[in-house]
Amino acid sequence: MAGLKRFFPVLDWAGAYDRSVLVSDLVAAVIVTIMLIPQSLAYAMLAGLPPEIGLYASILPLVAYAVFGTSRTLAVGPVAVVSLMTASAVGQIAAQGTADYLTAATALALLSGGMLLLMGLLRLGFLANFLSHPVISGFISASGILIASSQLKHLLGVPVSGKTLPDILGGLGANIADTNPVTLAIGAGVVAFLYFARLRLKAILRGMGLNTRLADILTKAAPILSVAVTILLATAFDLGQRGVALIGEIPQGLPVPGLPVISPDLLATLAVPAFLISVIGFVESVSVAQTLASKRRQRIVPDMELVGLGAANIASGVSSGYPVTGGFARSVVNFDAGAETPAAGVFTAVGIALATLFLTPLLANLPQATLAATIIVAVLSLVDVRAMARVFTYSKADFAAMAATILVTLAWGVEPGVVAGVALSLLMYLYRTSKPHMAVVGQVPGTEHFRNINRHSVLTDPAILSVRVDESLYFANSRYLEDRIAALVAAAPEVRHVVLMCSAVNAIDASALESLEEIDHRLADAGIAFHLSEVKGPVMDRLRRTAFLKEMSGRVFLSQFEAVAALKAELAEGGRSAGAARSPAAASA
Amino acid sequence: MAGLKRFFPVLDWAGAYDRSVLVSDLVAAVIVTIMLIPQSLAYAMLAGLPPEIGLYASILPLVAYAVFGTSRTLAVGPVAVVSLMTASAVGQIAAQGTADYLTAATALALLSGGMLLLMGLLRLGFLANFLSHPVISGFISASGILIASSQLKHLLGVPVSGKTLPDILGGLGANIADTNPVTLAIGAGVVAFLYFARLRLKAILRGMGLNTRLADILTKAAPILSVAVTILLATAFDLGQRGVALIGEIPQGLPVPGLPVISPDLLATLAVPAFLISVIGFVESVSVAQTLASKRRQRIVPDMELVGLGAANIASGVSSGYPVTGGFARSVVNFDAGAETPAAGVFTAVGIALATLFLTPLLANLPQATLAATIIVAVLSLVDVRAMARVFTYSKADFAAMAATILVTLAWGVEPGVVAGVALSLLMYLYRTSKPHMAVVGQVPGTEHFRNINRHSVLTDPAILSVRVDESLYFANSRYLEDRIAALVAAAPEVRHVVLMCSAVNAIDASALESLEEIDHRLADAGIAFHLSEVKGPVMDRLRRTAFLKEMSGRVFLSQFEAVAALKAELAEGGRSAGAARSPAAASA
Repeated sequence: MAGLKRFFPVLDWAGAYDRSVLVSDLVAAVIVTIMLIPQSLAYAMLAGLPPEIGLYASILPLVAYAVFGTSRTLAVGPVAVVSLMTASAVGQIAAQGTADYLTAATALALLSGGMLLLMGLLRLGFLANFLSHPVISGFISASGILIASSQLKHLLGVPVSGKTLPDILGGLGANIADTNPVTLAIGAGVVAFLYFARLRLKAILRGMGLNTRLADILTKAAPILSVAVTILLATAFDLGQRGVALIGEIPQGLPVPGLPVISPDLLATLAVPAFLISVIGFVESVSVAQTLASKRRQRIVPDMELVGLGAANIASGVSSGYPVTGGFARSVVNFDAGAETPAAGVFTAVGIALATLFLTPLLANLPQATLAATIIVAVLSLVDVRAMARVFTYSKADFAAMAATILVTLAWGVEPGVVAGVALSLLMYLYRTSKPHMAVVGQVPGTEHFRNINRHSVLTDPAILSVRVDESLYFANSRYLEDRIAALVAAAPEVRHVVLMCSAVNAIDASALESLEEIDHRLADAGIAFHLSEVKGPVMDRLRRTAFLKEMSGRVFLSQFEAVAALKAELAEGGRSAGAARSPAAASA
Repeated sequence: MAGLKRFFPVLDWAGAYDRSVLVSDLVAAVIVTIMLIPQSLAYAMLAGLPPEIGLYASILPLVAYAVFGTSRTLAVGPVAVVSLMTASAVGQIAAQGTADYLTAATALALLSGGMLLLMGLLRLGFLANFLSHPVISGFISASGILIASSQLKHLLGVPVSGKTLPDILGGLGANIADTNPVTLAIGAGVVAFLYFARLRLKAILRGMGLNTRLADILTKAAPILSVAVTILLATAFDLGQRGVALIGEIPQGLPVPGLPVISPDLLATLAVPAFLISVIGFVESVSVAQTLASKRRQRIVPDMELVGLGAANIASGVSSGYPVTGGFARSVVNFDAGAETPAAGVFTAVGIALATLFLTPLLANLPQATLAATIIVAVLSLVDVRAMARVFTYSKADFAAMAATILVTLAWGVEPGVVAGVALSLLMYLYRTSKPHMAVVGQVPGTEHFRNINRHSVLTDPAILSVRVDESLYFANSRYLEDRIAALVAAAPEVRHVVLMCSAVNAIDASALESLEEIDHRLADAGIAFHLSEVKGPVMDRLRRTAFLKEMSGRVFLSQFEAVAALKAELAEGGRSAGAARSPAAASA
């Protein structure tokens, strides 16, 4: 049963399902459905797909996630960044509006679903950890800017294409004279209303006596209100005839399950984007899920989340959808509206299915500018300037990775942006660990503590060099260690003993072991004994399996204090004879 | 003057040059010259080049290194592994024996020289550190096997081509019936003699009363003796007529300095191999130089070594040579023969130049099998099975990187081998640090020490969870930390305080900082306070620049003992009220 539960988290909660939970879930589902309808249409437009595809991607994926996902309250479906990445990937293969474009988007969902599923089964969730927070934050900010600027064309009613900021801005500049004033009026009006709703409406509603939760939920319904009002306006004034681009007829009815015909060539072309979409979608989704889960002391299982998202994307792929993931805004709404189990997701799916069956005829007169305005307001909140400032203050290296991610994303597109960010942050991490902090230490008078001689006034002995290294020893820094110790010894001709203080060394790999042997040999050649102190248990366990401990010229001391005390006593006794002599290592951890 | 000395290490020693140093250097130069003649011819053959190219590469490069290199005793010139890599790189571009092949080899030297020089000036020597010892050791062993098997054709006198072990062995198998018995007799004879010299001759000479040093040097002269004897045999018995492949006429005279005509296409093709040759050559050279320097308490400057080797390769490129580096065997001979300054290298260059002018007519009848035998005996000592066993015992992860390097090098060639080894070792390092060792710790009774509850019998408090993390916190492990702490807290419902013990945390990057904030928020949502203890000075300096310390629900304690003592007292006083309250952080390091 525990094993089954691991693969079907649904079993965890379905047994205890009762009427009160049902009511909570139903209420949440109604609210999320109302929120999801305009979002689904808008993000499909962002992805370059017909609006119904956004609705399709909000039905079966929710059911699949309810069965396999470990978060109780995550709401999956189309999201902004993944829609942008879809547009970027599919746009390289086919022209928007063609059947090939649709097929490629669906294939992308299937491929990404398969990858997520495989990563989950192979427990490769840790791969997502190589996206650092500054890289993700930079990527999402840059995506927000790209998305918002790409939607300006719908607000102005001019044709512009391009996947990079210079292309988009260039296109807008060239066509701005053709702006349709009615379209602009609608778009700007909706933007203004949505910002008003976001910044002021909640306070006004509360001032009118509504409770916080209801005020909050009504505020979040502002987009659907914009949709309704602009449809009415477009219908009443026949705005389609005045050059305002409308959504047009949406095919009524549910998607027919089926597999798209995918050529091996298409798969090969989509592999890298599908991987990036999978990882970015997973990271976004898991961070939302984890935040919500911990509020109720629940747990999510990241590797199982991969399976849940994989199932959701495969479900999207077999129902003419496109890549989906857990969205921040809608999950928070779901949580705040009181959803208690993933059943709320299933009810939401039913709601969207009903909308697809019965509401689509009403949407034909919806101006595209309304959806564009919805997107712009949603994504501009993704641009996190404060996060940039915070990272800048805290760490220039992290900021460099963030800035590179932002610039490359804006100038060359989403895929190069992610890749450049990850590569740069890994290289900088490796560079940092390759030149670890090292300090010559001395005894703080009156204590057994040893501290940096440059920061503290400490006692040292000219015949004993105590060096602390603040990093695990591995191949990238082992030669640096050799070199630094050689330099320190060359500068201190009276030294007879070198003690390496290993309190911050969490591991010693084979390269570092060889370097330690090398250091030992070279010091022995120069008549200097080499000792270790404060070696950790697991590191010592491993060293015990080597000949190094037996062959080294010095000893391993439990503490730096003990080392210096013992060596001072030896020096006082035997003069320098003890220095070069190879004494058997007294190993201890 | 100090600045000039940095860029012209020659100034360090030239001023103090006197007669006794001159004599030492001259003696060493004579001995190294004798050793270098057969080596230069042999390695040129290994690189697929005419024998004189090996001599050319042993003249100007030595002079250039003497001016710019920081090692007093390193002997540069053609070496086995770099010759193999040259053959592999150039063989992809042109057929052996053509003018294009020669041009490409010379271009490779220039390109590699330029890269080394640039890396030196930009202080990029640390790049070499990303080659781990197991990867280098595996690569050199595999190269040894490849080289030895590639030379078997000369021993058998059959034509075989191929750059990978399967190709070479397949070719040998197909042609073994055509073996020339006289060639095989010469080759096998030389192999046997060289092994005898290596294993027994020294002891015999010492038994005859020679001193150790002389016996050692005579032993190392065995290859030149083989050369002389087989030339005499080939001349006396006219072996060229019996199907024994001979070196043939070598153009007499010195190389004419000049630049090859290099097309941009050629440069682009050679860029990656040139980079790999540069890095591998640098690593080999520096490790030899460092070993020798420390024997006399001298220092080498790795970034300046790049300049020295860069100058040597450029000198090789302008004098019709091919890539060179510091060789292990010849440097040790130089050192043992008493060389005291790089002037010995200049004298060696003069010796080789004289040989090129006057000795080459004598070499025409040298059987290729003799050179092949010299190479085989030299490179088989590079195959280090004991190193493999040692790495296997010490670390399975390091062994995996080593085994991958060996297998890929043998099966696909030298370049994929190095790249695969470096990539795998970096990935494994990142993987390891992405799942750091974490331990729940408790107080060892009667002490102030806190140790792993699974390894020691310790005291714990059900309301206080003390967790030690044994790694710097950075993006690749920050989400793992979040997840582990969430899991630990979910499993311990009575916990009111979590203390993260940071004694092994050498750095906290922006991602980890966000994760700590996230952990703090999530714990606070669940009514748990989050504290840090034993935060290091530099880490604390950086944390002080953030809002985290002010906003966190708990405090920073100097030691884990202090943390637990204070929290226990609070719990005893105020019940659980202290747990969820956000108290101002009392920062301390």
